[in-house]
Amino acid sequence: MSFNERYNKVMEWLTDNELWLAFGSSVLRVALFLLIGRLVVWIIHKTIDRVILERESKRLPNHTRRMTTVGKLMKNVASYVVYFITVMLILSEFGINLGPLLAGAGVLGLAIGFGAQSLVKDIITGFFIVLEDQFAVGDVIQTGQFKGTVDMIGLRTTRVQSWTGEVHIIPNGMINEVTNFSVNNTIAVVDITIAFEEEVDRALDVIRHTMITLRDENLINAPEVLGIQAIAPTGVTIRVIAECRPNTHSIVSRTLNMEIKKALDASGIEIPYPRMVTYHRNEKGGGINGA
Amino acid sequence: MSFNERYNKVMEWLTDNELWLAFGSSVLRVALFLLIGRLVVWIIHKTIDRVILERESKRLPNHTRRMTTVGKLMKNVASYVVYFITVMLILSEFGINLGPLLAGAGVLGLAIGFGAQSLVKDIITGFFIVLEDQFAVGDVIQTGQFKGTVDMIGLRTTRVQSWTGEVHIIPNGMINEVTNFSVNNTIAVVDITIAFEEEVDRALDVIRHTMITLRDENLINAPEVLGIQAIAPTGVTIRVIAECRPNTHSIVSRTLNMEIKKALDASGIEIPYPRMVTYHRNEKGGGINGA
Amino acid sequence: MSFNERYNKVMEWLTDNELWLAFGSSVLRVALFLLIGRLVVWIIHKTIDRVILERESKRLPNHTRRMTTVGKLMKNVASYVVYFITVMLILSEFGINLGPLLAGAGVLGLAIGFGAQSLVKDIITGFFIVLEDQFAVGDVIQTGQFKGTVDMIGLRTTRVQSWTGEVHIIPNGMINEVTNFSVNNTIAVVDITIAFEEEVDRALDVIRHTMITLRDENLINAPEVLGIQAIAPTGVTIRVIAECRPNTHSIVSRTLNMEIKKALDASGIEIPYPRMVTYHRNEKGGGINGA
Amino acid sequence: MSFNERYNKVMEWLTDNELWLAFGSSVLRVALFLLIGRLVVWIIHKTIDRVILERESKRLPNHTRRMTTVGKLMKNVASYVVYFITVMLILSEFGINLGPLLAGAGVLGLAIGFGAQSLVKDIITGFFIVLEDQFAVGDVIQTGQFKGTVDMIGLRTTRVQSWTGEVHIIPNGMINEVTNFSVNNTIAVVDITIAFEEEVDRALDVIRHTMITLRDENLINAPEVLGIQAIAPTGVTIRVIAECRPNTHSIVSRTLNMEIKKALDASGIEIPYPRMVTYHRNEKGGGINGA
Amino acid sequence: MSFNERYNKVMEWLTDNELWLAFGSSVLRVALFLLIGRLVVWIIHKTIDRVILERESKRLPNHTRRMTTVGKLMKNVASYVVYFITVMLILSEFGINLGPLLAGAGVLGLAIGFGAQSLVKDIITGFFIVLEDQFAVGDVIQTGQFKGTVDMIGLRTTRVQSWTGEVHIIPNGMINEVTNFSVNNTIAVVDITIAFEEEVDRALDVIRHTMITLRDENLINAPEVLGIQAIAPTGVTIRVIAECRPNTHSIVSRTLNMEIKKALDASGIEIPYPRMVTYHRNEKGGGINGA
Amino acid sequence: MSFNERYNKVMEWLTDNELWLAFGSSVLRVALFLLIGRLVVWIIHKTIDRVILERESKRLPNHTRRMTTVGKLMKNVASYVVYFITVMLILSEFGINLGPLLAGAGVLGLAIGFGAQSLVKDIITGFFIVLEDQFAVGDVIQTGQFKGTVDMIGLRTTRVQSWTGEVHIIPNGMINEVTNFSVNNTIAVVDITIAFEEEVDRALDVIRHTMITLRDENLINAPEVLGIQAIAPTGVTIRVIAECRPNTHSIVSRTLNMEIKKALDASGIEIPYPRMVTYHRNEKGGGINGA
Amino acid sequence: MSFNERYNKVMEWLTDNELWLAFGSSVLRVALFLLIGRLVVWIIHKTIDRVILERESKRLPNHTRRMTTVGKLMKNVASYVVYFITVMLILSEFGINLGPLLAGAGVLGLAIGFGAQSLVKDIITGFFIVLEDQFAVGDVIQTGQFKGTVDMIGLRTTRVQSWTGEVHIIPNGMINEVTNFSVNNTIAVVDITIAFEEEVDRALDVIRHTMITLRDENLINAPEVLGIQAIAPTGVTIRVIAECRPNTHSIVSRTLNMEIKKALDASGIEIPYPRMVTYHRNEKGGGINGA
Repeated sequence: MSFNERYNKVMEWLTDNELWLAFGSSVLRVALFLLIGRLVVWIIHKTIDRVILERESKRLPNHTRRMTTVGKLMKNVASYVVYFITVMLILSEFGINLGPLLAGAGVLGLAIGFGAQSLVKDIITGFFIVLEDQFAVGDVIQTGQFKGTVDMIGLRTTRVQSWTGEVHIIPNGMINEVTNFSVNNTIAVVDITIAFEEEVDRALDVIRHTMITLRDENLINAPEVLGIQAIAPTGVTIRVIAECRPNTHSIVSRTLNMEIKKALDASGIEIPYPRMVTYHRNEKGGGINGA
Repeated sequence: MSFNERYNKVMEWLTDNELWLAFGSSVLRVALFLLIGRLVVWIIHKTIDRVILERESKRLPNHTRRMTTVGKLMKNVASYVVYFITVMLILSEFGINLGPLLAGAGVLGLAIGFGAQSLVKDIITGFFIVLEDQFAVGDVIQTGQFKGTVDMIGLRTTRVQSWTGEVHIIPNGMINEVTNFSVNNTIAVVDITIAFEEEVDRALDVIRHTMITLRDENLINAPEVLGIQAIAPTGVTIRVIAECRPNTHSIVSRTLNMEIKKALDASGIEIPYPRMVTYHRNEKGGGINGA
Repeated sequence: MSFNERYNKVMEWLTDNELWLAFGSSVLRVALFLLIGRLVVWIIHKTIDRVILERESKRLPNHTRRMTTVGKLMKNVASYVVYFITVMLILSEFGINLGPLLAGAGVLGLAIGFGAQSLVKDIITGFFIVLEDQFAVGDVIQTGQFKGTVDMIGLRTTRVQSWTGEVHIIPNGMINEVTNFSVNNTIAVVDITIAFEEEVDRALDVIRHTMITLRDENLINAPEVLGIQAIAPTGVTIRVIAECRPNTHSIVSRTLNMEIKKALDASGIEIPYPRMVTYHRNEKGGGINGA
Repeated sequence: MSFNERYNKVMEWLTDNELWLAFGSSVLRVALFLLIGRLVVWIIHKTIDRVILERESKRLPNHTRRMTTVGKLMKNVASYVVYFITVMLILSEFGINLGPLLAGAGVLGLAIGFGAQSLVKDIITGFFIVLEDQFAVGDVIQTGQFKGTVDMIGLRTTRVQSWTGEVHIIPNGMINEVTNFSVNNTIAVVDITIAFEEEVDRALDVIRHTMITLRDENLINAPEVLGIQAIAPTGVTIRVIAECRPNTHSIVSRTLNMEIKKALDASGIEIPYPRMVTYHRNEKGGGINGA
Repeated sequence: MSFNERYNKVMEWLTDNELWLAFGSSVLRVALFLLIGRLVVWIIHKTIDRVILERESKRLPNHTRRMTTVGKLMKNVASYVVYFITVMLILSEFGINLGPLLAGAGVLGLAIGFGAQSLVKDIITGFFIVLEDQFAVGDVIQTGQFKGTVDMIGLRTTRVQSWTGEVHIIPNGMINEVTNFSVNNTIAVVDITIAFEEEVDRALDVIRHTMITLRDENLINAPEVLGIQAIAPTGVTIRVIAECRPNTHSIVSRTLNMEIKKALDASGIEIPYPRMVTYHRNEKGGGINGA
Repeated sequence: MSFNERYNKVMEWLTDNELWLAFGSSVLRVALFLLIGRLVVWIIHKTIDRVILERESKRLPNHTRRMTTVGKLMKNVASYVVYFITVMLILSEFGINLGPLLAGAGVLGLAIGFGAQSLVKDIITGFFIVLEDQFAVGDVIQTGQFKGTVDMIGLRTTRVQSWTGEVHIIPNGMINEVTNFSVNNTIAVVDITIAFEEEVDRALDVIRHTMITLRDENLINAPEVLGIQAIAPTGVTIRVIAECRPNTHSIVSRTLNMEIKKALDASGIEIPYPRMVTYHRNEKGGGINGA
Repeated sequence: MSFNERYNKVMEWLTDNELWLAFGSSVLRVALFLLIGRLVVWIIHKTIDRVILERESKRLPNHTRRMTTVGKLMKNVASYVVYFITVMLILSEFGINLGPLLAGAGVLGLAIGFGAQSLVKDIITGFFIVLEDQFAVGDVIQTGQFKGTVDMIGLRTTRVQSWTGEVHIIPNGMINEVTNFSVNNTIAVVDITIAFEEEVDRALDVIRHTMITLRDENLINAPEVLGIQAIAPTGVTIRVIAECRPNTHSIVSRTLNMEIKKALDASGIEIPYPRMVTYHRNEKGGGINGA
């Protein structure tokens, strides 16, 4: 091939319509990808904002701040995913083999999937704790064996301070079943066992009378005497319940204990000691018992 | 190549039948995809509506509202899936490499599959709780260690309020085995232990007589005295059962306790204290016991 | 290119043998697919019908209805699978890229595989409970900690009503090990502890004599006195067993208790109280014990 | 193109060597696939037959029937797998796109893999229970908390009847660790506690003498007196063991109990009651104990 | 072909424009990959540095060192991943089949995913323990059944020294729920049981008076007497609590025990022994108890 | 086309160099595959033989037989894998689409992977039990709750016979942690509690003296008196230990019990009964205790 | 085609530049692969050596040997992986379809992944036990319920010999949380309960004085008397602690027990028996208690 021929071939190659068309179409597509990617991100952000605003309008101010955090996290995740796909599409448009990149992402994804499934679960559960308003900072909750006042709700862990001062740090993914003590009024339950010899009706009357006159700032209603809960060898058990403000049942129980103790003492009604009937046999003779 | 040649080539390219045919077929296919997608969504929505309507016709009004919620959720999920596939098919029709998009979806799916399997399980179980009418708001249920009145049934969590006021928030996926206390009449069971010295027949007579005359608004039938449940060193245990309206067995038990206690007191039948026979030995001599 | 040339090219394209052959072969294939799909569905339905008929011929009428339900479910599942594959084959025949559809199905399958594995397990186990006739409605069964009469066997859940009236709703997948109390005669077991002082042979004689004369509609044979089950400080334990009709052992036990109690009372054989030998030491001197 | 030209082209296409060669090769291959598939099935069936025959020659007749069942199952599974692959190969030979079929099979396989893994495990374990002869119908076994006589060994479940009549239906996959009580002679163990005051040597002599003269059809050897098992505050524990025929140890224990009780009574050796030394203090003065 | 022809062909091949263009484009791409890879690594390193610096500015010096370790680890991991992908891209650019390499990586990834998931989980959890500052070296923590002072926090394991000297080595992945005793003041709780005969009010007064005068360097406030915690047969339980400096509650409890014991002794208030009422019956006549 | 032309074309096709070259290369490759496959199998077999021989040279004869079994198994597995791959390579060489075959293998592999993972685990663990010589037939081992003499070690299950005769069949995969009692000398531990009144030094002297003169064929050294293990209200506990031959500690313990009991009796040292100090109060007046 | 033509064609084929170039490039690539593979292996080996040397320089000689074992294992694994990939690359270079080989490896990998994940976990954990020096041969450790002296640390199992002689063989993967008793000094804890009547201050003085004069070779410091640990009905509990050399706390405890017992005896301070206040009531009249 002469130089001219070669030059012509190069020129021909450079001025080939199909090549330029392909190139133009590529450029157009890339621009399109960028535009669409940007658009998708914008739509997602707007949607998240609207959802949060809707929720916020019916909430307390302190909740709003948390919702904003959640919204920010969701926006970040969504943006990363969309941008990752956009970059992939653009690279593939320029004819770069994406296999290795995707394989890298796949191996990473597998590692995350297996090793970090509890991490992912923590964040998802944390997200729903906030979204569903299962409990708030300051509530008294119990989850598993840990009970205390909620100190901090994070996306991965929740901190609960027990009443004796320890801080329990619990991954959200471990918070399967929560008991919230701060939502409703609680019922203080006091069981009093009186002796068999006592007349049950009189004891019930004494306790009922005490209960009616009882006053406590935490009480919602006057305590109620339910009746004979159980008959056991040790005596007859009378149950008293009292509806009180959330999380005050241990204080109310102590008041009830004090008042019932005093009333029973005053009326001479006995709280029984364990009893036992013993038959004495005096041994006579050798080694055999009871002979 | 001269300008004319180039122009001709472009014209030729633009007027090439195969190209236009391919383009036309593409446009047709896209339209077809859109149409079919829309159609499939419409069919699914109609099917869901009909299924719900059928179920609703034999239900309570409050149930209807929940079924509507379930139907809405199912419609949403179905629409999203169909539209996702439609968009995929259209994009692939325009020659856009779907690999990256699908890879992105795959990685997300993997993350969901591993980290959020309990979330998916929660929703599926919640869906079946509503569909199978396992329990309704207001029922008293027990699941695992949590017992109380159902407060709210959501798609992800169920809230149960215990009788002492705590709110248990339980993910539906943890609700494996439910005991519903509000469906059938319940049986109140009272075990009374009388002393060995008592004549069993007389005791049975006294209790039977008391039971026949007993009246309680929660009782369905007169309580039944089953007989001697057990013979133990502490005495003879007599079992009394009473069918009562759902969830009232603890109230009925208290009434039974009260009445049986009074009847036994009146007839002079003893509820025995624990007994023990003791053999006294007086020690004489050195260090060996009982010598 | 002149119009003639173009027209010729289009005509040539339209009359091209290979194209028409390809098209014809496609049409033929689609027809073939539809035919084979229909055929496969028909064969599967017939097979299921035959299998169920065979099973039904040796069953109770109430079982038949359940088998029909199972058959219907299996037919539905099989039809859906075959039609799904047929549609896939036809679409691929028309050159539509199935990748996205399959990817969609794959992501759904993954979600089902992970999140709904307990759902799938429920249905499979439910299917085998019916097929293997493990228990029927009305049987008394125990699975895990739940015991009661079977109320309803569904494909996903089984409802068991305990004797005190609660309804336990148990997912079939949790029913791993079942104990069926309604299949065989049960053995009522009564352990009686008599005092050491009593002559064991006489006690055995008294109980044996009582047992021979005992009559109860639920008894299959006269109860059997097995002998000395254990020698413990509290006394000698004698075991009596009685074969009785399925699920009546608690009733029979109560009868046995009553009769044995009366017989022992009549013969003056003692049911022993716990015993203890006590050595009294009288303290002399200051504060030190036993000095 | 003239008709002649077209006709020629079709003829040329139809008489094209390469086409016919390809077609012929396809037909040959299909025949080859069918032949090989049939052959592989035949070889597998023969192998299974031979393996079973070998095992059968050293077995009981009732076992043979079970082995035949297992063999039939294995033949079925093998045939289905081979035929499935053959059909796949033939279809792919005719140029049919197998993707959708395989995808369908894959989704089904995934569903089976996840939802039915316990089903697969049941069958595999059941297969090995039979193959390894872990237990047979009529053996007394314990697995987990279930103990009783084996009623039926199926490929998916095993039924065990407890001695009180309940039927336990246990999936084979739950039978991890089995205890078989019917293989070897069992040892009946009886622990007798005598008082401290008794001379241990004399007690050992008395029991040894009784044991030598003891006769019981279930006994393999005369029971053996092992010696002092433990020294506790309640007394000195002497252990007696007796080898007896499989599964008769509770009967033998009762005989031993009876004989030892009689021998000790005759020799005046005491089975001790619990003992306690009590120091009595008489209170004088105010409220402080022991002052 | 003559030599000239062959020579020409080689020359032509070597001077072929397309080849050189392809080669040039390859070289350019490789350079681009190297550059981008380097850039990505640099950006990631800078980001990590900035994140750590930000966190460090609000931390203690000892924490800084740990953060640096974490940062180094993250930089290493990120670099390895980026370089691995870059090498893959370059190799694929030179037309080397990457399938085997990726398959090798895939098999390794699978092995890691399954066998080493607890290893990955350990490192991820360790990373979050440091990042979230759940506990620090020197803190007293409890996780699971292990309690003690934190000795060392590694990326895979944490070492906790119990107060009796044992070193517990705990993989971070097992540290699900941590209780940190060193963050807040702790509450020392002392329960004192006094006899029924005592006047509760006087006892409360005595204890309250003692508490007011109590001095201890670990006490934050004067201890508080809560009231009657429980009424039991053994006596009335009074609860005293004292807020004290973190982790000093056992020391404070000992002080409280000592002071309360002395105060009660001085006031003559009794700590009750268990009590029991015994009814003596003297046996007369034959074998029946209590006759 | 004339016949001549056609004939020429066929001849040309048949004598085409490239075709024959391709065919020849295929034949060569197949031969190569067969050769290499055979070679690989041979090398693996030799390696296994050498490894086993090495291990055998330092082992007992009974172990050799087991190693041979293991070796045979490994050879079989290796051969099957190599032959499977060889057949695959050859089939792919003849242009047969391997997709379906591999898909079949994949579905089977998945089924095995999920349903039979415990089977695979059993065999792998069984293999290591033999290879690592964890225990041998005749050893006394404990794994989980099962203790007894090893009867049989198979590749899938191990049979352990308890001392009372039951045969425990344990899948090897459940044998996680094994305790082997037959490797080292065991220590018999005897705890003797003496009364507070006894002089501890004298008791220690008496026991020490007895221990020195003790003779037992299972004893390795004279038993050692460690000192005061615990001070409890019931008395002072003295611990004696004795090194004895493997698995004979229960026999030795019985001998020690007997000798110590006799020595203490002879020296008049008391084994104390439980003690209690009782304060008697005589009730005067109405219903209130202790008034 | 004449022979000449055919000969020419073959010659042309053989002397075709592109073919030779392709061949040459293949040979070059293979050589390159071998070289790179060898190089990578060499680099990995050197890196492992350097890492081990670094670690060895600060270690005990016995540790060195273990590190060498670990290093050898890592070298082997790395070599196998690199060589496997190299062979794959070379085979693919020669145009051999690697699909089947990789499929074989994949199925094997899957089988390993599922069935042998505990094996992989054992080896990884074993590797980290050695690398992190969690415990050494001769240390006393506890993991799970197994406690004893480490006998052997292997890559798959660790052998621990309990103090009574049993050998526990524990797979490394089960060693999650280890407690090492041989690292630090241990604290011996002795709790002494004295009677209420005793003056607490005098008792504390007596014990403190004894402790100061106590000498024991295992003691690090003089034991410390902490104070009143608890006030219970049985008496006042005094806690004494003593820092002693690793793993000698049971010996030191015995010494402390002996010395404290002697000191209290000498000072006449009582270790209290359980106490109880009994109220005697004498029955008058018929069968009713307390009448």
